[in-house]
Amino acid sequence: MSEISNLKAEIRAFADARDWDVFHTPKNLSMAVAGEAGELVAEFQWLTAEESRRENLDEEKFSDIKMEIADVALYLFRLADVLDVDLAEVMRTKMEINEGRF
Amino acid sequence: MSEISNLKAEIRAFADARDWDVFHTPKNLSMAVAGEAGELVAEFQWLTAEESRRENLDEEKFSDIKMEIADVALYLFRLADVLDVDLAEVMRTKMEINEGRF
Amino acid sequence: MSEISNLKAEIRAFADARDWDVFHTPKNLSMAVAGEAGELVAEFQWLTAEESRRENLDEEKFSDIKMEIADVALYLFRLADVLDVDLAEVMRTKMEINEGRF
Amino acid sequence: MSEISNLKAEIRAFADARDWDVFHTPKNLSMAVAGEAGELVAEFQWLTAEESRRENLDEEKFSDIKMEIADVALYLFRLADVLDVDLAEVMRTKMEINEGRF
Repeated sequence: MSEISNLKAEIRAFADARDWDVFHTPKNLSMAVAGEAGELVAEFQWLTAEESRRENLDEEKFSDIKMEIADVALYLFRLADVLDVDLAEVMRTKMEINEGRF
Repeated sequence: MSEISNLKAEIRAFADARDWDVFHTPKNLSMAVAGEAGELVAEFQWLTAEESRRENLDEEKFSDIKMEIADVALYLFRLADVLDVDLAEVMRTKMEINEGRF
Repeated sequence: MSEISNLKAEIRAFADARDWDVFHTPKNLSMAVAGEAGELVAEFQWLTAEESRRENLDEEKFSDIKMEIADVALYLFRLADVLDVDLAEVMRTKMEINEGRF
Repeated sequence: MSEISNLKAEIRAFADARDWDVFHTPKNLSMAVAGEAGELVAEFQWLTAEESRRENLDEEKFSDIKMEIADVALYLFRLADVLDVDLAEVMRTKMEINEGRF
């Protein structure tokens, strides 16, 4: 299995073990992605562009940011899993579409 | 290279070819993730939980949703890349933390 | 009636005339607020802090931003209306709580 | 002064007293709106449509939701203030545009 498929399976096992299937509709998972994306953007809201760079983040802030990135990714991969979406494939398709645009 | 590393490298090449480095600060990329997450949640806002399931989505709606998932993923992977974050690692770390919580 | 109550009543009349009541659950309206907030943040994502100031925005960009602010406000006022929340009151309550914090 | 103008002035006084002007660029405030909208949508993410209705929310949950609505409103009014946007006017303009659409 690919790396992304492995991660999806691990997230699925985590959710199944907690009987979260009933909550994990695509609608609800899209809300969870938006909610976590809100927490991610909030980490950066009062930083200048320069302060937001890796070399200027202190370890505690960087650790907080990594956890928010992880939260968005976990729900996004879960959403892709319940909708049976091949994440790598749609990312490459979208890049091809963007090639024509930019 | 791993699948996720490959995708990051492809996104990086796409951005480099368009001189987008100056725009792709972590701060700006966190905004792009939030912006695309907003478009993703908007796809689902007037659907019921049942209507949001894969088997009840028509092909056009499903295609729109896949493109929004791709957009969130592209900016999230790009953000992870510019911050030198190992996405699979932080996702697994966060799941371990969640193990203790739930 | 107060200015905010008037606006709520106008938005309610607009929604009622289109039979949108079935769609305007608090859950769905919270998604609409998040969706429009995503479009608002997207307007600013590639601007520097300086470029985002009123005096540096050209008229077309400023007009787009005003429409996104309006969209967030319309759904936020609608959400407050369906939940019977007095917006001015909760804003003042929250400021008082924040007084103690900062 | 109108109710909305009064609220804007109160929020402005609060920010001025804390020297937050340097942080409150339009760009940063759009991020704050998106961040708070993320927290708002997160309050509703695991509720069914029925559970999200006022009569089915317990007092603690309703109180949390009111505080999140207040947070979005505070930053949205602040953003309107720093951009010198008349919130009621743009809301009515947007409703007129929507009249033609729906």
